[in-house]
This record gives sequence, structure tokens and C-alpha cells, in this order.
Amino acid sequence: MSSHSPLIYHHTNTIRFIHPPNFLPGKTIETVSMATLSNATNIFWQDCQLGKPERQKLLNQKGCVVWITGLSGSGKSTLACSLSSELHSRGKLSYILDGDNLRHGLNKDLGFKAEDRTENIRRTGEVAKLFADAGLICVASLISPYRRDRDTCRAMLPDSNFIEVYMNMPLSLCEARDPKGLYKLARAGKIKGFTGIDDPYEPPLNCEIEIKEDSGVCPTPYVMAGKVVSYLEEKGYLEC
Amino acid sequence: MSSHSPLIYHHTNTIRFIHPPNFLPGKTIETVSMATLSNATNIFWQDCQLGKPERQKLLNQKGCVVWITGLSGSGKSTLACSLSSELHSRGKLSYILDGDNLRHGLNKDLGFKAEDRTENIRRTGEVAKLFADAGLICVASLISPYRRDRDTCRAMLPDSNFIEVYMNMPLSLCEARDPKGLYKLARAGKIKGFTGIDDPYEPPLNCEIEIKEDSGVCPTPYVMAGKVVSYLEEKGYLEC
Repeated sequence: MSSHSPLIYHHTNTIRFIHPPNFLPGKTIETVSMATLSNATNIFWQDCQLGKPERQKLLNQKGCVVWITGLSGSGKSTLACSLSSELHSRGKLSYILDGDNLRHGLNKDLGFKAEDRTENIRRTGEVAKLFADAGLICVASLISPYRRDRDTCRAMLPDSNFIEVYMNMPLSLCEARDPKGLYKLARAGKIKGFTGIDDPYEPPLNCEIEIKEDSGVCPTPYVMAGKVVSYLEEKGYLEC
Repeated sequence: MSSHSPLIYHHTNTIRFIHPPNFLPGKTIETVSMATLSNATNIFWQDCQLGKPERQKLLNQKGCVVWITGLSGSGKSTLACSLSSELHSRGKLSYILDGDNLRHGLNKDLGFKAEDRTENIRRTGEVAKLFADAGLICVASLISPYRRDRDTCRAMLPDSNFIEVYMNMPLSLCEARDPKGLYKLARAGKIKGFTGIDDPYEPPLNCEIEIKEDSGVCPTPYVMAGKVVSYLEEKGYLEC
């Protein structure tokens, strides 16, 4: 057959079709409507020979997720920004997934009901996983108050590529900062269900990095970022 | 004030708080529950001084979205894979968002009802936008049969950073290839609402690149990828 035959590319190119874990070979397929089809039946897994290892080599770094959790005002965005700058100065590519920003785009259909909060975290975890697969150091910055939701995201990432950073700052400090004026509104009863005031924050039990005050002094953004960078360096994420 | 005071970082660091477009300054806030809160009220836009221009400079390329649309079996994944390899060989970082793969992760809660298809495309567009903002050449590969849904994604990307590639292959060819055996099922009436058989495919009216047969011969993956790479090179995406 000529290599120009339109029919043979699916046999000769580098794409493999791999059945997803929930695909049952030999399963009898009844008449179904696409509108009611679940994803198990007719969705194939596409793989390409150019993968994460090649991208990591190009970037000379290892893709991972740095997940920053903590109260509103605890310094998550400050750390994310400082970390991203520090990594960039070392020639490393990172990208910040900010909880608030995502709610203006990908998650704009979600509110703050319990199931919406969970879906908000799930989607962010899925996107963070894609960025890590792309080879980037993905910095996710979200209050993410519930342990279960964070652990769901951790479970998405294999091989210890989920690095949880807990901003362990006292509520009193976060409230004194109140950068968005939300604690004031929550204390005045104008916002209900606000994390730390009348909705719980569940601290991590097994985080990789904890950022906290030292003798009552809060570390500077540079010092906080340095702590994370040191961890990444030690674990071999900053080379490939 | 000492630079170690925990209270001044929000005044001195590089984070700016920008009201989103739908935020109304001076608006009276009534008592609200977080559970019923919309995203307009208390979500702030986080910005960081390290942005897309700096990431593009690091990568020596410009972030954009290459959106490949076409029938099942038209060669979208083949082109995506070949394009990604060709870009990699030139030291450029790309990432493939494959419609089928996303349905195993981010979009696993969605089926094939009209509104689910639309939401599937919307989320993919939002994620593609994030990857372009990260500085990557994001290659989205989805049937994306409806013009309106594709144009929604185009509208998300400013400055002509949405490059639509139409795999203009005859249905007869796609059906003869039938790499996933889905046309056979659709013709046998075992799948209803299958694009090209009993659900419409709306060809682009204004795509940037069209891939089609030349004198009845289908271009090779290498030739298809070359056409897209030439476009990207000509428009300046492969340098910064």
C-alpha cells in the first residue's frame, strides 16, 4: 500500500487506543442514544508518544502541583506570587491557579453550596493535574477548607507529585489583615457560612510544608517562597 | 513600621486587588449566605506581576490555542500528536487537550445531551485559555460540532490567539477508517445522535487553517503538522 493511502494512517501512526479502566471488552452494546450515554461506553483513551518525560526534559524540571491551603487572608496568593517569581528567576515555568480567578472562568457556574465547593475543588484538581502533566509546577491557591476535598485532589496525582502547603496563620491575624473586607462583613452577619467564622476550616494532617509565625513574627513572602523552593529543590523537581 | 510586621504585606507586596467587571463599588450588601452567593459579590480578581509576557519570554514562544475540529475519524488526534512532536523537535512547548481524555477527568460528570456537549466545550475552552496564558501552544482536539460552541471559545481568547483548524475530510473516508468502530454502531442504529450520521456537524465559516484531501489523496500527518507549524511561524508564535 502506498504511504499516501488515506486508510492506513490509523495503523501506522503513533497513536494507540487504550481502553479506559472501566471499559469492558466483549460487553454487548444495546441500542443507546448519545444523549444518555455514559462515558464508559464510547470514549477511548488517546495517547501520544510525546509525553510528560519529554516535556519535562525540554523544561528541565518535573511537573507537580503545589497546593496552598489556608484561611482567607492567610497569605496564599502572596506566597503563590512570590513562589512563581522565585521559580521564574531560576528559569523554571510555573502557573498559578487562583481560586477566585477560576470562579470568573472555568468555575463561574458554581456557587458556595457544599456540593458546589466540592465541585470547585475537584475541577481545580483536574486542571492542576493537566498542568503537572504538561511539565509545569502548578501552584494552586484556594482556601479549600475541607480535608476530604484536598485529599481527592492528592489522590489524582501519582508519585508524590502533590505538595500540600498549609498556611497556618492565626484567625486573628487573617482577620486583622482582612484584605477583601470579608471578615468584617461576616462578623456583621452580612455573609453567612464564611470559612473560619461560621464554616469550618479543617487543617491538613499530613501536609508536606507548613508556613507559620516564628516567635509571633510572620515570615516575609521571600522567606515563605524560599521554604517551598528548598523543598522542590531537595526533592529533585527543579531538574530533570 | 518594621518590615517584619505581619500587617503590612498586603500594602507592600506585588498583589493588586482588582474589582471584576461585574463588581459594583458602593453597592449595599444585604445579609447573604455563602451558600447562595453569586460570584459577583465577593470574588476578587488576583493579579501577579509575573505574567504571560514573562512566561512567553522564558519559553521563547507565544501562548495560543490551536483548536482542531472535525468528524470522528477525520484525523484530529493524528494531527494533534504530529503537531506536538514537530513543535517539540523545535524546542517549543505544547500540550494536547483531547476531548475523549477530558471526559475521563475534568468532564467526567458530563454526558452527550446538547447542554452537556456545550458545557464540555465551554470548560475545554476555559482550560485551553489557561494553558495559552501559561505560555503554551495548547492543541485542543475535539469534534466540537456546533459553530456556536466553537465561537464561544474563540471569544474567550483575545488578540487572534485562537487558531481554528478544520479537518475537512469526507464522511465516507472517516467512516471507512472508523478507528473506534463507532460509525458501524451508529449505522446499525446502536448509537443515536452520532455526529455526521444523525447529528449535525457545522463546518467553520472562518477557520484559520483547513486540512483536506489533495486530488483525492489525504495529506500525511507530517504534511498536516507542517501546514500548522508554517502558520504559527508566519504569525510569530514560535518566537518571542
